[in-house]
Amino acid sequence: KMLGRVLCTVLFVGAFPSPAEASQGHISVILLGATGDLAKKYLWQGLFQLYMDQVSSGHSFTFHGAALAALEPGQRLMFDVLKKLSCPPDEAPNRCAVLKDQFLKLSQYHQLKTAENYTALSREIETLLRQEGLKEAGRIFYFSVPPFAYTEIARHISSSCRPPAGAWLRVVLEKPFGHDLQSAQQLATELAGVFREEEMYRVDHYLGKQAVAHILPFRDQNRQFLDPIWNQHHVERVEVVLKETVDAKGRTSFYEQYGVIRDVLQNHLTEALMFLIMELPANVSSAQEVVQHKLQAFQSLWGLERSSAVLGQYQAYDSQVQEELQEAQGYVSTTPTFAGVLIRSDSLRWEGVPFLLTSGKALDERVGYARVLFKNRAYCTQSGALRDAGHSQCKPKQIIFHFGHGALNTPAVLVSRNLFQPVMPKDSWKEAEARPDLHVFGQPLSDFYVYSPVKERDAYSVLISHIYHGRKDFFITTESLLASWAFWTPLLDSTSRQPPRLYPGGVENQHLLDFEMVSGGVAFALAEPAQLLSPSGQMPSDFRAIQSKFRQSPLVSAWAEDLVAQLASDMEEAAARSVARSGQFHLALSGGSSPVVLFQRLARHHYGFPWQHTHVWLVDERCVPLTDGESNFLGLHRHLLQHVRVPYFNIHPMPVHLNRRLCVEEDGGAELYAKDIVALVANASFDLVLLGVGTDGHTASLFPRSENGLEGAPTVVLTESPVKPHQRMSLSLPLINRARQVFVLVLGKGKHDITTLLSRVGHEPRKWPISGVSPSSGQLVWYVDYEALLG
Amino acid sequence: KMLGRVLCTVLFVGAFPSPAEASQGHISVILLGATGDLAKKYLWQGLFQLYMDQVSSGHSFTFHGAALAALEPGQRLMFDVLKKLSCPPDEAPNRCAVLKDQFLKLSQYHQLKTAENYTALSREIETLLRQEGLKEAGRIFYFSVPPFAYTEIARHISSSCRPPAGAWLRVVLEKPFGHDLQSAQQLATELAGVFREEEMYRVDHYLGKQAVAHILPFRDQNRQFLDPIWNQHHVERVEVVLKETVDAKGRTSFYEQYGVIRDVLQNHLTEALMFLIMELPANVSSAQEVVQHKLQAFQSLWGLERSSAVLGQYQAYDSQVQEELQEAQGYVSTTPTFAGVLIRSDSLRWEGVPFLLTSGKALDERVGYARVLFKNRAYCTQSGALRDAGHSQCKPKQIIFHFGHGALNTPAVLVSRNLFQPVMPKDSWKEAEARPDLHVFGQPLSDFYVYSPVKERDAYSVLISHIYHGRKDFFITTESLLASWAFWTPLLDSTSRQPPRLYPGGVENQHLLDFEMVSGGVAFALAEPAQLLSPSGQMPSDFRAIQSKFRQSPLVSAWAEDLVAQLASDMEEAAARSVARSGQFHLALSGGSSPVVLFQRLARHHYGFPWQHTHVWLVDERCVPLTDGESNFLGLHRHLLQHVRVPYFNIHPMPVHLNRRLCVEEDGGAELYAKDIVALVANASFDLVLLGVGTDGHTASLFPRSENGLEGAPTVVLTESPVKPHQRMSLSLPLINRARQVFVLVLGKGKHDITTLLSRVGHEPRKWPISGVSPSSGQLVWYVDYEALLG
Repeated sequence: KMLGRVLCTVLFVGAFPSPAEASQGHISVILLGATGDLAKKYLWQGLFQLYMDQVSSGHSFTFHGAALAALEPGQRLMFDVLKKLSCPPDEAPNRCAVLKDQFLKLSQYHQLKTAENYTALSREIETLLRQEGLKEAGRIFYFSVPPFAYTEIARHISSSCRPPAGAWLRVVLEKPFGHDLQSAQQLATELAGVFREEEMYRVDHYLGKQAVAHILPFRDQNRQFLDPIWNQHHVERVEVVLKETVDAKGRTSFYEQYGVIRDVLQNHLTEALMFLIMELPANVSSAQEVVQHKLQAFQSLWGLERSSAVLGQYQAYDSQVQEELQEAQGYVSTTPTFAGVLIRSDSLRWEGVPFLLTSGKALDERVGYARVLFKNRAYCTQSGALRDAGHSQCKPKQIIFHFGHGALNTPAVLVSRNLFQPVMPKDSWKEAEARPDLHVFGQPLSDFYVYSPVKERDAYSVLISHIYHGRKDFFITTESLLASWAFWTPLLDSTSRQPPRLYPGGVENQHLLDFEMVSGGVAFALAEPAQLLSPSGQMPSDFRAIQSKFRQSPLVSAWAEDLVAQLASDMEEAAARSVARSGQFHLALSGGSSPVVLFQRLARHHYGFPWQHTHVWLVDERCVPLTDGESNFLGLHRHLLQHVRVPYFNIHPMPVHLNRRLCVEEDGGAELYAKDIVALVANASFDLVLLGVGTDGHTASLFPRSENGLEGAPTVVLTESPVKPHQRMSLSLPLINRARQVFVLVLGKGKHDITTLLSRVGHEPRKWPISGVSPSSGQLVWYVDYEALLG
Repeated sequence: KMLGRVLCTVLFVGAFPSPAEASQGHISVILLGATGDLAKKYLWQGLFQLYMDQVSSGHSFTFHGAALAALEPGQRLMFDVLKKLSCPPDEAPNRCAVLKDQFLKLSQYHQLKTAENYTALSREIETLLRQEGLKEAGRIFYFSVPPFAYTEIARHISSSCRPPAGAWLRVVLEKPFGHDLQSAQQLATELAGVFREEEMYRVDHYLGKQAVAHILPFRDQNRQFLDPIWNQHHVERVEVVLKETVDAKGRTSFYEQYGVIRDVLQNHLTEALMFLIMELPANVSSAQEVVQHKLQAFQSLWGLERSSAVLGQYQAYDSQVQEELQEAQGYVSTTPTFAGVLIRSDSLRWEGVPFLLTSGKALDERVGYARVLFKNRAYCTQSGALRDAGHSQCKPKQIIFHFGHGALNTPAVLVSRNLFQPVMPKDSWKEAEARPDLHVFGQPLSDFYVYSPVKERDAYSVLISHIYHGRKDFFITTESLLASWAFWTPLLDSTSRQPPRLYPGGVENQHLLDFEMVSGGVAFALAEPAQLLSPSGQMPSDFRAIQSKFRQSPLVSAWAEDLVAQLASDMEEAAARSVARSGQFHLALSGGSSPVVLFQRLARHHYGFPWQHTHVWLVDERCVPLTDGESNFLGLHRHLLQHVRVPYFNIHPMPVHLNRRLCVEEDGGAELYAKDIVALVANASFDLVLLGVGTDGHTASLFPRSENGLEGAPTVVLTESPVKPHQRMSLSLPLINRARQVFVLVLGKGKHDITTLLSRVGHEPRKWPISGVSPSSGQLVWYVDYEALLG
């Protein structure tokens, strides 16, 4: 039929492969959503480029546009698009015209709706190939459809349209890949049910942008210069930025569900950041090594908290949503259209270096870049003008991967001339010409070595070429997708209730969106101007800590994150008071999972904590070696001690591992710890004891009906836990009750029942050990989050 | 006689004190060196200012110029100076003319040469006061004489010219106060033999400069703004700078002995730095509190090393010295006329913040300032011009104490407007007027709040007023003087052999004197240009490590500082190799004083050391609690461990304090340590053991004729030391000899004899335990400095 004729035509054209050369086999490209926006704008052009590039490769091609529309209208719509395909400037017009003609003939529209449609398509391809005597090399299915359609299409392809054995299947997926970790996981599971990991190509078109794609090769080719400086001692900050001038008008039905973080930060900007901060793989073109290193980099990042981000929304957004989504006049959206996020890493390389990711709509310019700014380590002896002459070491030093737009208006790699002259691959990057008037990043362009691509290429045609070549390193694997969602989801959750700052848009934003790093997070630099106050500013401030009473003692309650912040502040205050009074602060800490967020908060936000004068004691310990994963001390070390400067001598792990054996009575570990306490802690009265509560009412390692520790002497005891590891060491209740202050931290829905129970019962330590906590002359404060308190 | 007449004249003038008001008593000011340069230029003018300010104070005055010259010529010289005294612009000309006339009459020349001269002066004062019926309030002796004359003059004053009981003595001393720590100590001891501490006023005229003197009051009055930001988290760097355009011509006889560090950095710049970095005293006008805090600040500073400084010398200096000091044509001076020094503090507040002190002659401008530059913690969302509009948080934030000269040409305090509007005392500081054309520190003046003194005052008249008021906080105490010399002397010693970089002078210096911070020290940013190479560049490079053999093992020898640097590098290399091989590095370290410099070097220069994977063991320990000053572990902790990130679990102090008692045999501490080693160190073979040598040939805590540890099993033993504390724990020789590498560090003249001896003797561990070190399958390397090797 038609296809046969087309193929004959192709093979007939002199300059193109003879049947013998075509022995590489045939590739069928099926573009789903062939008449949609993305297809119109980028994908057909990318496929045409692929055809132009690969027509002599030995492969033959057919292109199948598909959509839900019936054959006739679909065909017409599609060919309207194809007719407008343009010839690239570096292509000979004659050749291009011939190729375009062939491309049109090789392209065909299909309605793909039912299982039968898919079966028919598959049969058509097979028939054609049999007729032409061609071997099938593979099929590319490009999903340019809304994500809700993914699963059904995937099932149809898998069941009715797989290529025969020996030929490959590549399905290309476009974001969004879920909405948060859970939905991404669900989608991934569904896709994994029908496709193998190596069959899936998840597109983040930023990986096709030339400046982004060159980050790893640049780091690799310039190892000699970068090795000594690519670390916390030399890098001041890393910025990854995408600024847009357009707003979300016309796209609010999508945007209102996603917002800027899901739209841009979770994917594009995160990918660029990962290329910058991952440990450099030995082989940067090994997809496997790259993804391994990327996953490690994710592991090293601090968890995001609400204070990690500032959010904004341009003022016209609400009315656009009201109009486009037919919402009521009073409708208020909290979807952010601007975000600035501070990301930090724990790795030795990057500790202390801020990574700033920023993106927004309705800003003053359109530009995208990743920028590594180095510390100024020089002193320049000359004054003013003389200082800045030439390539002074006092000028800023930076490396910029310029994605596009902005004043430069081209992809580019910029390296400050006072850093080094980079090695760049001559076949693909050339030195850009001088533009004496141009300033970028506060400096004249002449302060940089500037390279731009020899041939500028659209991201989609780059990626389509990579799909053709099976270069999986330019696509997002399931693992790294989920790692990214795991990283971003806590921020999305904790900011979902937060009203963004409103901004007028464009240059009128002035300094309204400038933000600063403050105590571990970020905050807008300017106070909220009164005239721009969001109506949602009148929301009940339900995230503020409320104070009340619980079991006759003070109660602090709030959402978990705020509660922990409050507790950490109160601890610092207690520490400062204690050091002022006695020169020391004796702090006894509990293990378990609840305090982990507290420890992290203390390590990351409380630079003023007097660690040098703090003694850290354990409230309880499991009888395992200190380096065992179950050890309370190991958790304490990992999340707190290794990040702060407590002198070695002031750290007091419980001696559960004396004489290289665990909690043997005759080794006297408990007595030894009690003796240490008596020797160092005045009156054996800790300045502060931090406790938790178990669902059974246990606290420390004092369990209901415990034989030891619930009454009697203020000492240290060995106890038995109902759960593994059974053997424990613990401060006794009487010893805890000698403390000046006892804080009890209770977090999470799982603690709601015991919290409710405790609010009713009296002093019954044998049933509920926590009910026996009652400092004889000290103060008890309960820190209970809303979930534990209210269920 | 004459004085009587003069006094009558004074008392006669209507506007001035009646005898009743004069009951405060009489003050005699004796200016020694009355006809010298400093006196001519500043001191007489300062005394005249004092007289104008205090004539109505109730005190009466006489002024006694003194010198070695005979009466007649001296008198003439002195009155030539006095006649030129000028009236300050804010003084009414009539009043000033009258007061100047009186001042001349109250002033008298004396030859002060012999003991008799001093006795005569004293008698004259007493006679006069008796005649006039005046009570003596006190005597001020101002030493404006070369320091070699200090001691003799001091003795004369003390023995022949002290005021009677009830009146005070104040002696004012001008720098230099010594040439290094030793000479400063000697001078201090001599002066302490004749004067009490409270009688001595050591002048550093920088403390009289208005902008320097206001540093502490500024910090005090702006506590609310500065408290949160005056620390390592906010401050990027601190610079204290004095640039001069003049050279040393005409002063080389002084300069050649001192150089820029002694002339400017050790005193003026250090004092300004201390005001900036000391913990703020509760009462900033308490001299005692200030000096206490200053001493603490000195304690917190890292020791200076050769790499802490870059030194320069302007090219014409040598020929000036040759001419002025009649040196031979070939004479080459290594006296620096330019220095840039990196100072760092260990305090929690300032850890990691570079303090840069810079001064030089023959530079491009004359200016002095102390500058605190804050970190840029902002992200400004706007582009280019918009970003910098107004008081953007992205503009540099700095506080500058401008001592004088430069473009501003006045003392001033500048605070970036995006920081805060400072509180300034309105009676003494006023907002400076706008100067739209002026740029300072890279910014238009309008970016700052700028304050200048209401009344500009010369430093000397300020200080003379403080002497009069007994304000000792404006002068250098013996303690702080010696602390400063103790701090600077090691740098002076270690750089004394180093040829400075030559520079042409003025604007031609270009970037030749720009320097950068590199791995813990500083280095010139540009390589030495060939045409400027100093002839002294051809000195034998005797400070390079030489390599050879010692006791059949490799020997590395060099001056101590280079040797330690080499050893530290070799250790890092060994660590990296070991971690690459086994994932771990087991390092056993010795105590004592020699390794301290090594520990410091490792902590400060070796950021790449794989501490996270290093296990630190002790070679030996004294049987004292770990927190005892005698503990080897405490020294190791203080100088190394608290600065690096060795996981808690990887730190292995020797268990000399089990069960809260010291090295009791039955506690089995030695056995326990041996068990730990066996459990953790593969094959009980340390990757590296670092040893020292005692003058008696002991190593580790293995002493000659020790009963334990010299032979037998590879284990841990208790030993006896001939010196206190006697009880020790030590690795045994057989255990040491299982190591893969053993490095022995030998430093200092005191080790020359044992080094010589060891080079001759064989394997005799019972006589000289160190001679038994001979790793069975590992490598032994000797690191012996020139002093130990060559005596």
